[in-house]
Amino acid sequence: MTSGSVMAAEMAEQPAVLSRLISQCDDLFAGVRAILPSPPLRVVVLARGSSDHAAIYGRYVLEHATRTPIALAAPSLHTRYGVETDYRGYVAIAASQSGRTPEIVTAFDYMRSNGAIAIAVTNDGDSPLAQSADLALTLGAGPERAIPATKTFTAQLAVFALLAEAMGPVPWSETDWESIPRVVEAVLADPAPAAPVAAAIGDARAAVVLARGFLFSVALEAALKLKETTSLLAWADSTADFRHGPIAVVDSELPVLSLSAAGPCAADVAEITDDISARGGHVLSIADTPGADLPIPPGVPEALATIPATVRAQQLALALARHRGLDPDTPAGLSKITATA
Amino acid sequence: MTSGSVMAAEMAEQPAVLSRLISQCDDLFAGVRAILPSPPLRVVVLARGSSDHAAIYGRYVLEHATRTPIALAAPSLHTRYGVETDYRGYVAIAASQSGRTPEIVTAFDYMRSNGAIAIAVTNDGDSPLAQSADLALTLGAGPERAIPATKTFTAQLAVFALLAEAMGPVPWSETDWESIPRVVEAVLADPAPAAPVAAAIGDARAAVVLARGFLFSVALEAALKLKETTSLLAWADSTADFRHGPIAVVDSELPVLSLSAAGPCAADVAEITDDISARGGHVLSIADTPGADLPIPPGVPEALATIPATVRAQQLALALARHRGLDPDTPAGLSKITATA
Repeated sequence: MTSGSVMAAEMAEQPAVLSRLISQCDDLFAGVRAILPSPPLRVVVLARGSSDHAAIYGRYVLEHATRTPIALAAPSLHTRYGVETDYRGYVAIAASQSGRTPEIVTAFDYMRSNGAIAIAVTNDGDSPLAQSADLALTLGAGPERAIPATKTFTAQLAVFALLAEAMGPVPWSETDWESIPRVVEAVLADPAPAAPVAAAIGDARAAVVLARGFLFSVALEAALKLKETTSLLAWADSTADFRHGPIAVVDSELPVLSLSAAGPCAADVAEITDDISARGGHVLSIADTPGADLPIPPGVPEALATIPATVRAQQLALALARHRGLDPDTPAGLSKITATA
Repeated sequence: MTSGSVMAAEMAEQPAVLSRLISQCDDLFAGVRAILPSPPLRVVVLARGSSDHAAIYGRYVLEHATRTPIALAAPSLHTRYGVETDYRGYVAIAASQSGRTPEIVTAFDYMRSNGAIAIAVTNDGDSPLAQSADLALTLGAGPERAIPATKTFTAQLAVFALLAEAMGPVPWSETDWESIPRVVEAVLADPAPAAPVAAAIGDARAAVVLARGFLFSVALEAALKLKETTSLLAWADSTADFRHGPIAVVDSELPVLSLSAAGPCAADVAEITDDISARGGHVLSIADTPGADLPIPPGVPEALATIPATVRAQQLALALARHRGLDPDTPAGLSKITATA
């Protein structure tokens, strides 16, 4: 078998998984709206690892929709420090692909028993997380066998976007949703650009991944995929934070990957690209602009461009693993469920 | 002048700055309590860069005190996406050492005009941030001339801890506060351990910094100090996230720094240290246990041990910069105020 063939096969399922989620959106909207408390909505999001990156995306779209500050939970406050937070009036949304990450299940149960209305976002409707929830939203992505989460991550992005849509105004339309599976298919049908980007990264020890706004969550996920599958120490930062301080690490040797889509944050990414060039660095790009190293089709609203941008990052992780002679399906010593209790 | 002499001089001022803040805590408590809305308290924290690491510490201690979920603001939602969040009933706490980071000032003004009670944490009482606030808490740290923030960062940690104390129960006592300046003085009087740790890191391109709970904020700050002053690409992660996925980057060459203090998260740090050793890696430690590479005095409650742990990280950044022949006072091309508008 080719190295990474399981990961590649699971990546290829993404258009179908997304199509199904989108086709079932009316059920999701009805289910969510039936359990929401009266406004003002107060939302707390709970997750870890890859799911936490989807949750960070969720934090942006949910605040856009609800117009109230969204909190990302710090599970250790409950599981380590015994803080008794009052969750009455809150909707707690927990994301875990397996639905079995022990600390997330514990913290979610805690939130529900302290007053929260509990929504689980998981790929396993029989999991403890789904069983604890007032409403379980399943990804329907089928079993995921490769260690690096791919189809479950983009499905989580879609579910968080749909959750936001159930709660208030969002910066995309139904037509935009309809285009997403086709856009992802187009990206999957064009894997070639990943090879030269992987070759440019070569055997670098470390790299930086930059984005802002909605796409920041994808920068975090891209960095994680690269760490898991290629041992590249990829570190994600917001362009706004990077330019003051961390930019000191840039030199001609350090690979920098940027993510950008037409919208209010594109100028920030363009500006940091110039700053990095001025320091002798070179930026590899995932973007919807002509000439991007890893192009995504134009015309997708920035908030949904997170999905095809993620697929580009998956292709890069796969290509770099192969370039390095590693098998991304089974990175040394990693297991599928985070065991933190 | 010795390289880093300004940074070292500012580090040396920390016991005096902290003493002054602690001696004035009754004024701070009275000022905060006078403007707090009636419970349940709803708090949103706003910051960027180094101040954001203090804000992440604030997020933990404030949730401990208020027993309600604390939100960390995503400024781009207001400054880039124009989201009109309703902040009525919220206390907005913004931290900026200069009080002049444009985007933080803009977002803070936005929060206040949308209903928040606004508290500024800044080193400059005449700054735009302080001027916009309902209550300005000044650090009293005096001018900071070195690019890497040191005394203002530990002062911010202290102010966030005192803010939490003004709002509810905290895991330390007045006696603990009284010991802090002396503990910091003891660490400052013992800079020698930083040199061998710096030598062990040597000319590594990248490194990982790990912690959990209260000390996670210091891991983020330690990583930033190292990036700013030494160009080491230091990347901070929570032990809970690191063990599932990112641990794949570990090998015998990658320096790993851990931060730990007696308390509920010490076992997590001990466990990840074992996991890393099992992969052939080696962990350098900032801890209050015997044999730590960079020891902090025992007996300080974990939540306040963030302050001496930060000072150890500052010493390491300074020592590594000198080891690399760099001047941490003026890293190439960095300026003191984040310019994101």
